[in-house]
Amino acid sequence: MFRKVIHVSTRREGEIIDLTPQVAAVVRESAIRDGLVHLFVQHSTAALTTIECEPGVLADLTRSLAVLAPDDAVYAHNTKWGDGNGRSHVKAALVGPSLTVPVAGGKICCGTWQQIVLLELDVNAGRERTVICTVTDE
Amino acid sequence: MFRKVIHVSTRREGEIIDLTPQVAAVVRESAIRDGLVHLFVQHSTAALTTIECEPGVLADLTRSLAVLAPDDAVYAHNTKWGDGNGRSHVKAALVGPSLTVPVAGGKICCGTWQQIVLLELDVNAGRERTVICTVTDE
Amino acid sequence: MFRKVIHVSTRREGEIIDLTPQVAAVVRESAIRDGLVHLFVQHSTAALTTIECEPGVLADLTRSLAVLAPDDAVYAHNTKWGDGNGRSHVKAALVGPSLTVPVAGGKICCGTWQQIVLLELDVNAGRERTVICTVTDE
Repeated sequence: MFRKVIHVSTRREGEIIDLTPQVAAVVRESAIRDGLVHLFVQHSTAALTTIECEPGVLADLTRSLAVLAPDDAVYAHNTKWGDGNGRSHVKAALVGPSLTVPVAGGKICCGTWQQIVLLELDVNAGRERTVICTVTDE
Repeated sequence: MFRKVIHVSTRREGEIIDLTPQVAAVVRESAIRDGLVHLFVQHSTAALTTIECEPGVLADLTRSLAVLAPDDAVYAHNTKWGDGNGRSHVKAALVGPSLTVPVAGGKICCGTWQQIVLLELDVNAGRERTVICTVTDE
Repeated sequence: MFRKVIHVSTRREGEIIDLTPQVAAVVRESAIRDGLVHLFVQHSTAALTTIECEPGVLADLTRSLAVLAPDDAVYAHNTKWGDGNGRSHVKAALVGPSLTVPVAGGKICCGTWQQIVLLELDVNAGRERTVICTVTDE
């Protein structure tokens, strides 16, 4: 098993960051040829998934997440704590914090149009995000 | 590998139960210091995710799930089987049954405001839920 | 570790295919008794989850996904690339490409009403989908 933390600096709510190159680098550093790479974002207002990392798709995803948790809804979390990030928590819980991708021949087995992304969902922008990257072999 | 089943008694639809202490106890019992803990809920009307386990956030999540699968929609599942839990199946499939969290130094690596939760989504309350907890080491 | 690729031919958008028998066959072939089976769909317009594989539930799930990403919305992805599958990308990113299920006694530990499914979400039907299936043991 090989573990490394990926640090990501985000700037704004709705930012979607392609982590594929950094995950690929961790897999290379691990020297593991065949196995799995597990990713976990250690925050409750960010999430991980895969998507075609193209500005149009990313804008479409952001809009769909706002259907689930609209900007202008009244959030019990905000009312109680004054945080303003009620919608961020909801979106993050639905997308989820964890993702596992196969590794074969030392490479991540994503599809051609499929990238690993971190979703910055917090309204309070400019955050340091921690993604724990664990590579396991046979 | 160490495996233990966590049993959860739920009382009502929309209940969200913090499993973090029970998962932490399984990890301690496993005596595994560094690895991963995998969770799987063995039901089609319950789900697993992480969230800040605070009543406001939980109410907000419940409302967002109802946007996806409203109480008053007509469900083909209900029409066919008379179960009444069509919305429960839909929500559970979208949130998902499985979650993997890193273990480091014998502890679960969740963020400060990030707890592991089971979502009871079935309209027929008072259920016994089974979560299979598998700890793997290096 | 044992790995095998499952190939799935799909015919139409919204098709939901029960992969449980094929995953069970891979687990049997692996001869692994206790461990985990990890699945990853190598595409950005298909997804994996568990659900009760019954036509009513599947129709209900399809409708809920259309709440998130309606057919008649204007997608930035479509405007830019003319693909027409903007909604497919959004749905796939929200459901997710990866799923891990426990294996015990050589069998997949799904619940009685819980099947492993592939969601074909692309508007351009008739696709060959690749699901990488990795069985790990203790």
